[in-house]
Amino acid sequence: MREVTIGIDIGGTNTKFGIVDKEGHVITQGSISTAKHEEFRDYFKELAGALRKSLNELGSDYKLLGIGVGAANGNYYKGTIERATNLKWKGIIPLADMFREEFDIPAIITNDANAAAVGEMVYGAAKKMKDFIVITLGTGLGSGFVANGQLLNGKHGIAGELGHTSVNPAGRYCNCGKRGCLETYVSATGIKRTVYKLLADHLEPSELRGISFDNLNTKMITECAIRGDDVALAAFEYTGRILGMKLADTVVHTDPEAIFLFGGLSLAGDLIFKPTIRHMEANLMPLFRGKIKVLPSALQNQAAPILGASSLVWNYLENEPSRRMIPS
Amino acid sequence: MREVTIGIDIGGTNTKFGIVDKEGHVITQGSISTAKHEEFRDYFKELAGALRKSLNELGSDYKLLGIGVGAANGNYYKGTIERATNLKWKGIIPLADMFREEFDIPAIITNDANAAAVGEMVYGAAKKMKDFIVITLGTGLGSGFVANGQLLNGKHGIAGELGHTSVNPAGRYCNCGKRGCLETYVSATGIKRTVYKLLADHLEPSELRGISFDNLNTKMITECAIRGDDVALAAFEYTGRILGMKLADTVVHTDPEAIFLFGGLSLAGDLIFKPTIRHMEANLMPLFRGKIKVLPSALQNQAAPILGASSLVWNYLENEPSRRMIPS
Repeated sequence: MREVTIGIDIGGTNTKFGIVDKEGHVITQGSISTAKHEEFRDYFKELAGALRKSLNELGSDYKLLGIGVGAANGNYYKGTIERATNLKWKGIIPLADMFREEFDIPAIITNDANAAAVGEMVYGAAKKMKDFIVITLGTGLGSGFVANGQLLNGKHGIAGELGHTSVNPAGRYCNCGKRGCLETYVSATGIKRTVYKLLADHLEPSELRGISFDNLNTKMITECAIRGDDVALAAFEYTGRILGMKLADTVVHTDPEAIFLFGGLSLAGDLIFKPTIRHMEANLMPLFRGKIKVLPSALQNQAAPILGASSLVWNYLENEPSRRMIPS
Repeated sequence: MREVTIGIDIGGTNTKFGIVDKEGHVITQGSISTAKHEEFRDYFKELAGALRKSLNELGSDYKLLGIGVGAANGNYYKGTIERATNLKWKGIIPLADMFREEFDIPAIITNDANAAAVGEMVYGAAKKMKDFIVITLGTGLGSGFVANGQLLNGKHGIAGELGHTSVNPAGRYCNCGKRGCLETYVSATGIKRTVYKLLADHLEPSELRGISFDNLNTKMITECAIRGDDVALAAFEYTGRILGMKLADTVVHTDPEAIFLFGGLSLAGDLIFKPTIRHMEANLMPLFRGKIKVLPSALQNQAAPILGASSLVWNYLENEPSRRMIPS
């Protein structure tokens, strides 16, 4: 009997899911549309049906231990999705309870960045670490903190909102309503804003002058930088400086062994890692210098959100072993 | 049989100790000179003798469960004091091992601010909290973080150095070698520096113009502010603004239920709490607004360092109950 968990990644457009074993092998995966369902009940019915179909196809050699869900605004304590701006459904959705009733197994929900942190611990490069941080660099900047071997959820289930620490109280406008938040500088959107600021302030020629804001993306900026484009290079240096300075503040809170960078921007390699590490070290309290590793996530592939979500179940069973004994 | 623990607070001048019960009653206390002993062996011999004498005087109705020590640069993992700048003894002192050998009981060491955090959890206002921060406002600014009900020590045993987050990279010089650290603004020394900056920049008359930097202290600034002195009032407003802005960054890391302020500056009451809370709320990510309490520590008395140190033992026994079973 091979033990497996299901990982579900609920995005605004599509919901992806996979059946995953303890070593992080995705045995089978699938997806359904999130956006087409106006009513949550209809969405849940299609999702549950798709999961049952995948499980049946696997056969009876597999034992399902639980379901993990990563979703924007997923609340770990309540097992709910609350007022997610990227989803149509209003109010508070008791998703964990619904999965528990439907499949009679544990269901755990948290936000995407927390799921990425647990994924790194269960399958990735943080397997032997008890204190680390994962920073997800997508449209925004998310983060998940692990300390003493446990995910930090905080009192209200909202720990790890590093994207909304302050770089400059009079700085760039942020979706959250504040100004100058870290994610307005350090994220796929942040580096685009930096490119446009540099193009506005400076005279240097640049390939990037030919691309509209809407068409610009991290991959283009990376490729330009590799070809030696001054504006693209300056944008990475600036992004790494801001991230490095803020990480110097962050690490004195929880004293992590490592910080993992995940997602689009982190794929730029040395272009982002070198300035980040240099400016972090330069701004660190001397006691911390040379102690904190900044590393790429080991889960840099398309299945990462599914892996992160599925890892929640293994982590849950390990920390609350008595739950495994409850007759189902 | 009444169970007790010993709390020891090692300061540069004196070492204070007390025998404490589970409810936080200091049954007996004493002190010896730290500074007079050039050799650590001599110091330890006097301290162990004083502890034995206190225990003997208590009689046989009491059972000693362990010794807790709070000291600058105390390392929780190694049980050592390392290169403390306020102590004469060189190198790494294996204090926990020495206590364990001498008394045949568990001994736990950590820095003063971490001890204060555990003290707040065991005896103080954080008894029912699992996620909170204690900030100690003395000559510098120390902090201890509790998350998921556990003290955060971090990978290298140096978590919670909030005093060395950055307010301004080109700001005031700090003992740590950096510039613009939080503790250069928010601490007994920080508010003195702010008073002197205000006296330099402004023309307002102030009682504080008659006091030298060396003679100035937090109590004087507080009393002047209560009498309506504009410079003293402005110094508290400025200090609270800096602290509030930095706390808005800190709380998005661990999402605490409360932040406790401890020590000299915190005794100024509304003068420091009101601007701190106002500026924290104004700078907080909206998701966190109205959720985080900022409160005075419940251990605001002279025995607080002894209580904090003694609490380490209760906390240790509660988290590692098997230790209690080891035959002594």
